[in-house]
Amino acid sequence: MTTIIKNGTLITASETYQADILIEGEQISLIGQDLSHSNAELIDASGLLVLPGGVDPHVHLDLPMFDTVSSDDHYTGGKAAAFGGTTTVIDFVPQDEGTLADNIARWRAKADPLASVDFGFHMNITRFNQDVAREIFSLPDLGITSLKVFTAYNQRLRLSDGEIFRVMRLARSAGILTMVHAENGDVIDILVDEALAAGNTAPIFHAKTRPAWGAVEASLRAAALAGQAGDAPLYLVHMNTAGEVNQLVYAREHGLKMMGETCPQYLFFTEEDLRREDGAKWVCSPPMRKPIDNQRLWKGVEEKTIQVIATDHCPFFYDGTTPVVYEGQPVAIPGKELGRDNFTKIPNGLPGLGDRMPIMWTEGVGRGHITPNQFVAMHCTNPAKIFGLYPQKGSLVPGADADIALWDPNKELTYGVNVAHHRTDYNLYEDWQLRGFPVMVFLRGQKIVDGENWYGKPGGGRYLNRNEGEILT
Amino acid sequence: MTTIIKNGTLITASETYQADILIEGEQISLIGQDLSHSNAELIDASGLLVLPGGVDPHVHLDLPMFDTVSSDDHYTGGKAAAFGGTTTVIDFVPQDEGTLADNIARWRAKADPLASVDFGFHMNITRFNQDVAREIFSLPDLGITSLKVFTAYNQRLRLSDGEIFRVMRLARSAGILTMVHAENGDVIDILVDEALAAGNTAPIFHAKTRPAWGAVEASLRAAALAGQAGDAPLYLVHMNTAGEVNQLVYAREHGLKMMGETCPQYLFFTEEDLRREDGAKWVCSPPMRKPIDNQRLWKGVEEKTIQVIATDHCPFFYDGTTPVVYEGQPVAIPGKELGRDNFTKIPNGLPGLGDRMPIMWTEGVGRGHITPNQFVAMHCTNPAKIFGLYPQKGSLVPGADADIALWDPNKELTYGVNVAHHRTDYNLYEDWQLRGFPVMVFLRGQKIVDGENWYGKPGGGRYLNRNEGEILT
Amino acid sequence: MTTIIKNGTLITASETYQADILIEGEQISLIGQDLSHSNAELIDASGLLVLPGGVDPHVHLDLPMFDTVSSDDHYTGGKAAAFGGTTTVIDFVPQDEGTLADNIARWRAKADPLASVDFGFHMNITRFNQDVAREIFSLPDLGITSLKVFTAYNQRLRLSDGEIFRVMRLARSAGILTMVHAENGDVIDILVDEALAAGNTAPIFHAKTRPAWGAVEASLRAAALAGQAGDAPLYLVHMNTAGEVNQLVYAREHGLKMMGETCPQYLFFTEEDLRREDGAKWVCSPPMRKPIDNQRLWKGVEEKTIQVIATDHCPFFYDGTTPVVYEGQPVAIPGKELGRDNFTKIPNGLPGLGDRMPIMWTEGVGRGHITPNQFVAMHCTNPAKIFGLYPQKGSLVPGADADIALWDPNKELTYGVNVAHHRTDYNLYEDWQLRGFPVMVFLRGQKIVDGENWYGKPGGGRYLNRNEGEILT
Amino acid sequence: MTTIIKNGTLITASETYQADILIEGEQISLIGQDLSHSNAELIDASGLLVLPGGVDPHVHLDLPMFDTVSSDDHYTGGKAAAFGGTTTVIDFVPQDEGTLADNIARWRAKADPLASVDFGFHMNITRFNQDVAREIFSLPDLGITSLKVFTAYNQRLRLSDGEIFRVMRLARSAGILTMVHAENGDVIDILVDEALAAGNTAPIFHAKTRPAWGAVEASLRAAALAGQAGDAPLYLVHMNTAGEVNQLVYAREHGLKMMGETCPQYLFFTEEDLRREDGAKWVCSPPMRKPIDNQRLWKGVEEKTIQVIATDHCPFFYDGTTPVVYEGQPVAIPGKELGRDNFTKIPNGLPGLGDRMPIMWTEGVGRGHITPNQFVAMHCTNPAKIFGLYPQKGSLVPGADADIALWDPNKELTYGVNVAHHRTDYNLYEDWQLRGFPVMVFLRGQKIVDGENWYGKPGGGRYLNRNEGEILT
Repeated sequence: MTTIIKNGTLITASETYQADILIEGEQISLIGQDLSHSNAELIDASGLLVLPGGVDPHVHLDLPMFDTVSSDDHYTGGKAAAFGGTTTVIDFVPQDEGTLADNIARWRAKADPLASVDFGFHMNITRFNQDVAREIFSLPDLGITSLKVFTAYNQRLRLSDGEIFRVMRLARSAGILTMVHAENGDVIDILVDEALAAGNTAPIFHAKTRPAWGAVEASLRAAALAGQAGDAPLYLVHMNTAGEVNQLVYAREHGLKMMGETCPQYLFFTEEDLRREDGAKWVCSPPMRKPIDNQRLWKGVEEKTIQVIATDHCPFFYDGTTPVVYEGQPVAIPGKELGRDNFTKIPNGLPGLGDRMPIMWTEGVGRGHITPNQFVAMHCTNPAKIFGLYPQKGSLVPGADADIALWDPNKELTYGVNVAHHRTDYNLYEDWQLRGFPVMVFLRGQKIVDGENWYGKPGGGRYLNRNEGEILT
Repeated sequence: MTTIIKNGTLITASETYQADILIEGEQISLIGQDLSHSNAELIDASGLLVLPGGVDPHVHLDLPMFDTVSSDDHYTGGKAAAFGGTTTVIDFVPQDEGTLADNIARWRAKADPLASVDFGFHMNITRFNQDVAREIFSLPDLGITSLKVFTAYNQRLRLSDGEIFRVMRLARSAGILTMVHAENGDVIDILVDEALAAGNTAPIFHAKTRPAWGAVEASLRAAALAGQAGDAPLYLVHMNTAGEVNQLVYAREHGLKMMGETCPQYLFFTEEDLRREDGAKWVCSPPMRKPIDNQRLWKGVEEKTIQVIATDHCPFFYDGTTPVVYEGQPVAIPGKELGRDNFTKIPNGLPGLGDRMPIMWTEGVGRGHITPNQFVAMHCTNPAKIFGLYPQKGSLVPGADADIALWDPNKELTYGVNVAHHRTDYNLYEDWQLRGFPVMVFLRGQKIVDGENWYGKPGGGRYLNRNEGEILT
Repeated sequence: MTTIIKNGTLITASETYQADILIEGEQISLIGQDLSHSNAELIDASGLLVLPGGVDPHVHLDLPMFDTVSSDDHYTGGKAAAFGGTTTVIDFVPQDEGTLADNIARWRAKADPLASVDFGFHMNITRFNQDVAREIFSLPDLGITSLKVFTAYNQRLRLSDGEIFRVMRLARSAGILTMVHAENGDVIDILVDEALAAGNTAPIFHAKTRPAWGAVEASLRAAALAGQAGDAPLYLVHMNTAGEVNQLVYAREHGLKMMGETCPQYLFFTEEDLRREDGAKWVCSPPMRKPIDNQRLWKGVEEKTIQVIATDHCPFFYDGTTPVVYEGQPVAIPGKELGRDNFTKIPNGLPGLGDRMPIMWTEGVGRGHITPNQFVAMHCTNPAKIFGLYPQKGSLVPGADADIALWDPNKELTYGVNVAHHRTDYNLYEDWQLRGFPVMVFLRGQKIVDGENWYGKPGGGRYLNRNEGEILT
Repeated sequence: MTTIIKNGTLITASETYQADILIEGEQISLIGQDLSHSNAELIDASGLLVLPGGVDPHVHLDLPMFDTVSSDDHYTGGKAAAFGGTTTVIDFVPQDEGTLADNIARWRAKADPLASVDFGFHMNITRFNQDVAREIFSLPDLGITSLKVFTAYNQRLRLSDGEIFRVMRLARSAGILTMVHAENGDVIDILVDEALAAGNTAPIFHAKTRPAWGAVEASLRAAALAGQAGDAPLYLVHMNTAGEVNQLVYAREHGLKMMGETCPQYLFFTEEDLRREDGAKWVCSPPMRKPIDNQRLWKGVEEKTIQVIATDHCPFFYDGTTPVVYEGQPVAIPGKELGRDNFTKIPNGLPGLGDRMPIMWTEGVGRGHITPNQFVAMHCTNPAKIFGLYPQKGSLVPGADADIALWDPNKELTYGVNVAHHRTDYNLYEDWQLRGFPVMVFLRGQKIVDGENWYGKPGGGRYLNRNEGEILT
């Protein structure tokens, strides 16, 4: 299949220029002036911007949690992603029973038949022993070049500092990037017990029991462990507090190879949102913080201290007892109502995968926080480079996969659950006015989104064997 | 007993002026111009500086460690202190078997009959449960208003983060200051095991197995725990790395009530000293660091970021098999030689109690790092205020204990083990040229040092019931 | 004359303690417990704080400006000072016609017969040539050890950068401290001309035509000139912007000997106050800034970056056409009304001398920004040290002048023009609720204020020959 | 003319990928996989990197100074540039007699017939009045969108602060970028006079009379003036001190639109080089500084605080009395020997235009300070964007001018005057070992350098009418 995208303005992480793109098969084959080709379908991109398809390196699809499951699977999540301009996602493989390979195989078995955009996996390491240590070295053979550790969720996901240190050293030797979820698990557990004992069960206590200082120190702790582990590279997920940005700057200025990601929700919302009647919608971990945190995170984005915007997409229904119609069928999945009487039982997570690029375009580019080039860097190129997908993904260069989003910078719309395609019953950005939106999306040369039309399909997405990534600092 | 110190120049934390001091009984009763008194002994302090007796809030006397004991007890340590101008020390009570009160009583039983200068106790909390929690509230009744926790020495002294958090909250409620030894115990244990397995037994591996980044993150971690514990006040002992100073500044700028102490050894020596043939002399925990750390610590002292100079005095013989003569008797106590073949068996600690003020006068005041007033603040007044001894100690004001050091700013000498009075066989500052030295020292009105003469005696020092301290930031 | 102040709590820059003070003649002769003296008047200070009399190093008394004169002379200004706890002021000698000595003599002739508190002089250098250069060296013989230069007021007070550089080098050699008024005169003149041309004559344009960035860069410029002048010491007057605090920190961290002063008005007011109907009351130079500047200045005070609180006292009547009664006589002095139609004709200046200590006690100490000791340091001891008056002034030590303020920490009152004793018709702090106030004030042993009674008199204040000051950094 | 560059690895400011480039006429027309074209010359770039031709925005060609002239004219300078990979230069038009347009026309008349690479002009504004003010608005019509002001060179090039402020406001309105040379002219003049009076005539006094603090404050002063001028964009040329980097960060963090450039000489040399026997070779303004400045500048480059590497190329002969052979002819131009007895008569300037990219590749990329992408950003893309030449210059995109450097990353050579093509008799990097070098260079599709062969010619370079640039911060 051959396509020419004509007359668009190409936006890359550093360039803005007018040119045509020839797609042959699954790749971009040519970029040039006035391209023509005998058999090509012509797409007129006059007045449109041509962006690489987005790469969201932090999603949780079909993830069991608290007697339910995140409500987007690899099909519905990918579809929502595509409508928002994102054509690659990286999901996390839980370390359940068996070997890492077993777990990966199980997760592949779920994802492969359903995936509607391309996808890769990170490996969670939440249990450590000599067998796990040995197996880390084989992860790259399975296409996995990043793993994630937690300093919170004691007795569930957390490793001890010593185990994290060991994992980081192994990962570094294996060419694997360590990602860290940074909070202080001990303090959280104490505060949660006390809150429940005191009858404090409302969503706001989700935030009150996970103090920001814990995230700040755990970020520096992880950085320090990485430093002690022979300067292992480190990637701090879902940065949410001012202090994390400060410590990221500090760590980097003192020679550590540390990179950072934030998510749109941490730029726009605060713990005050948890006090709303429907506050459960904003329950995710780490929690929303304060306005000063929003501001510092924005500054970190502007100054490029933070390199990646991801989503931590992990949606649940707000009211899982009332079905919504999805592709013509009623769907209801237990969700936030599970924690109506106890904030610790509210499934942790939010929709965001499809919102990421449109929201950040309007709010980030539109308000002058970042340039279109920086937008592409943070949503496409940087995550592709960091996670070993570059230049196959995240870039508009000949030879790259023809993952392309045509972006209409002048399109105006009122956003919300009826526009987004997540399989859930709410959206955090309900009624936000957006200007700039993707209008056509290609996945490896296939048009999968055209306006409101969806041409993707289950299994249309492909598993990505990732290479060792780059350290961007 | 009545004494007048005439014609001296009084130095306090903020003032420098000429006046006479009348001592009646144990206290300063008058400060004024041209004092006279019918029965008073007159001390001519012409040309001398008159300083409050020093307060060293970080000493370990008669402390069992590694099959031996720190070689200064409460008599010999106090004597060395006095010759160096220090008249008050605060020692740490280990949490051994039994209640806190039991431990305190045992430590009192050792110290009371021997103490030759005034002394107080900090309580180590190295084991935590509900009984301990309850007992924390009774510490002030026993005269103890500070406790110490450790983030290192797993399975021995360390509390978990959650336990530290709980202790900080209790301490705050009880008007008790939490002190923290900040290193990362997990990493140290792994590195020590690996070093020994690799046959790396020399003293330098003491430093190599306790990386500075661990101290840096543990400092911020402790600060963050204190912040989460309702802004509990925190005192960081023996600051030794540049990063700790940076994080202390950071914590304070972000509203935390954090104070910091360093020790002379961290200002002057580096891990290179551990590579010397007699490197075991410099083995203490945390270890010596790098020149950049010395520099940042000095800057922290100059800028008053660091409020206290203490010593962590915990001496051992370098060669405990060869007696030295102490007060006319040969003495030998097993020491550094215990670790000749294994750095982990070198008793951790250094002499320093008597060196503190003379060394810091020559190197700190003499080289322009600090003024004489700041010298008094850091060695006398600040520790007295922070640890609830003010204005009884650390200050030259009527009503205060007449603890006074007459200081000859022009006295020159070559320092070393033969000048210092520690009961050990070496001194870190051997052959250093000093200018400025205490020539007469009073403890509660009693002259205990006069040139080379010693008038103190076992039991002459008194246990100090301390009040709640001040937060100096 | 002999007086004993009994049972008070003495507050110095570092100490807080209970003691009695014996005043013999003009000096403090004794401080001690339970003092008695056969002929002494006893003052019972039970429940009161005993502070050194304040030192305000930045006042403009009887200063001709814009066809009028500042409305407090050396008598009325000193009286207002005393009622506010201040017993020493330092005034500026303008460089008018003739030699520096001529100018100083003229200023002495005005001040000596009137002064009601002790006073010293700074010398303004606003015209530079070889004669002036030579004469700078003789200033210390006239008791003057500080001079002031301006980077603004082109054609009037400003020296060129090169002249300032030369003055600084001379001053440094002569043991004289250079003070700087830092704004950018060029930009101000352009903006003023443009504002007037545009018909923008309201008081707010006073602020709009003196941008904060000019103060920021001129502060660093002055610091840099001092650095280039062989590290001449520098004192930045009336700091008013966040950026000045930042640059002061920067300069000091990079080795420059720079000290800083702010004034209460810059801590409490903003340019919004200039938009009030009576905005002319707030017209002074530099102007009020923004809330972010208030905050940073407070932080600079808390962190002791800023060492001195002074006033830049230079009062004018708000309505100089309507007399007020002063000591029983109607007084009217042309004032702010002169600029009713043109902000450039509003006399620049504010009352503040008497307000300084009461306002800062309630707002600074009372709200926890500073401790009582820091209050004394910033209002008494530091200015005395910096300007070569220590220990004669600014301190409670035997031998010092018996300048003492008895402070009732519990006295509550509603402040304003009817409480303050400035000879003007308004007060910036009208209706502020204060807690803590001076109730009795001594000048060299003489009680000059007792509640609402005034015992001072013209000529009762004495000219102070100042020594070379200290560099406090 | 048609050319295909095959099999190279393209390096842009953000991308690294393999592709072929088709050049048709003067532009890049296609970038793609496996390109072919019936008439194209094929260039095999296997193993080579393909970079955009460099843009050096700071050169002085054929510039009269001190009774001589900079020894490279627009032909020889362009040739040296090309051999070093640079295909665009921006020269400065002095403001001599007549209108700005007159001066520009005279400079065009010199440059047009000689230029061997493409070139643009900045306008120096060194004399300001209403006529100049008016004419600034017409500069863009003459292709000039940047102007330069000086805070040094009193009576020669310097404008007053007020004039600079006015120029900045005009420039901002006209879409023109203000560049600033930041030093303190007053101090320099005083120190120079004193040095000469003291007989201090050696080259080192060039540095000693231009202190770094002057550069630091003048940088902030310029930034502040720009801020006061309605946030006019500002470009700080030839950053040379640590403090300038600090202040650039400060200005930007506080909202100012400030960009910065450094030059290789400030990264590698110090004032100690001026003490060499041939120290005059290193005389340029501002002077070399200290190692700490080198380090901070490198950090500024690494952190992308500094956006551009330029050269301030302004070469002179070291010994202008001894001819060298240039293109077969003996050439001698009076140079550094003019100041043999007086450092103020040494022509100010250095060769550097051809050295820039090879030196920075080896030292910057080779030592890990910057990535190849950042190298392209700083030497090509950023200057093109900032100075309004993008995307015509500085980038490898279809439609851009086919200015291309083929770079052999493995080529090793010993660099020096015999390798560089500057028309002078020395090189600062004599005997430096380089790895990585341009081996073929195209200017608008024409091969002008091929190994040691030169195909460029006088007049082959074209004047560039520049657009308004971008603000990169």
